[in-house]
Amino acid sequence: MKLYYAPGACSLGIHIILEEIGKPYELGQVALKEGAQHKPEYVAVNPKSKVPALDLGDGSRALTEFPAIAAYLALSNPEAGLMPKDPLGQARTLEAVDYVTGTIHPHAFTRQFRPNMFSLREEDHPKVVEQARGNAEKFFGVLDRIWAGETWVMPQGYSIADAALFFVQYWQVKRVGQPLPPKVERHYRAMLERPAVQRALEQEGLSA
Amino acid sequence: MKLYYAPGACSLGIHIILEEIGKPYELGQVALKEGAQHKPEYVAVNPKSKVPALDLGDGSRALTEFPAIAAYLALSNPEAGLMPKDPLGQARTLEAVDYVTGTIHPHAFTRQFRPNMFSLREEDHPKVVEQARGNAEKFFGVLDRIWAGETWVMPQGYSIADAALFFVQYWQVKRVGQPLPPKVERHYRAMLERPAVQRALEQEGLSA
Repeated sequence: MKLYYAPGACSLGIHIILEEIGKPYELGQVALKEGAQHKPEYVAVNPKSKVPALDLGDGSRALTEFPAIAAYLALSNPEAGLMPKDPLGQARTLEAVDYVTGTIHPHAFTRQFRPNMFSLREEDHPKVVEQARGNAEKFFGVLDRIWAGETWVMPQGYSIADAALFFVQYWQVKRVGQPLPPKVERHYRAMLERPAVQRALEQEGLSA
Repeated sequence: MKLYYAPGACSLGIHIILEEIGKPYELGQVALKEGAQHKPEYVAVNPKSKVPALDLGDGSRALTEFPAIAAYLALSNPEAGLMPKDPLGQARTLEAVDYVTGTIHPHAFTRQFRPNMFSLREEDHPKVVEQARGNAEKFFGVLDRIWAGETWVMPQGYSIADAALFFVQYWQVKRVGQPLPPKVERHYRAMLERPAVQRALEQEGLSA
């Protein structure tokens, strides 16, 4: 099993899940800034030219899409306890993962980090970034208001939703330098205490 | 159980899944064009102000996020056979759903239908729409190249991934008037033959 990742990208969430599971796996770094994701070697792995992608080592096409990879790892490693066992618990976990990957990531962070995707003119980029920062505040605020668990996202305990939430929290705190609302901040601090999170950060060359 | 939807929105995919399952449910229309999703009555249902949302009728917060609702319906109605039973089959199904909801929907269609989200200037909108049409061609092309099943998306048979793919196919053909590549077109035609798809379209006042 091999995770294709870029340091500090959303693939960090999958990297944490692999560390939580604790079984052997390989890491393959994709130099996004140099456009390696568009080169034939990587397009052969993931025709969508994105990370994360997980080569399952079984000869099949690498598994792509964060929620699908996270769900696969949780479902195929039930002993790691990374997802509730009942349909509704699994759906609520996916709901939290999807809010991170489908809303917070693109509309709060991609919009800040790649404003050219959201405006054709460089002179408009500051306004796009400003909108994105407002979105981040709004989205983390929604999470704080609907927070159902104690420390972790799911009332049932630690899950793949926590690893998903962590990568956008890390961006908000470390890359943008903005605060998180109280419950979301408490969650971020608890994540930083987990050995799996510490190992993933260290392996990607990121500060805790 | 009550599905909050808007006619012809991505909620159409969930509507189809409910019709495939065939158990009783209610429909609650949300007038997106009149901004009903931002009014207190709907924010109380879904604080994210989006459709679809599924009120489970158990007093808990409505379930949101297309992939989570779709997975819940498939997992809690196993007799409907809308998802493989093994972890990898489930992950591959979610992967296909997520490509539709996380990539094709926002970057090929939201970009066309709401270009103001992707450009601050009205005079840039034609260029944004043009980019989006190029994206649609590219994304449907990726799907066509990696198509693993026969008629349906999953080699195992009809699944929630087919209902997800249908709503973007419908937009491409009916709303934009652009063609689909061969395997994706064959899938679209097969979907139109399904009674559940025909009922969902009719209930939303849409032409087949």
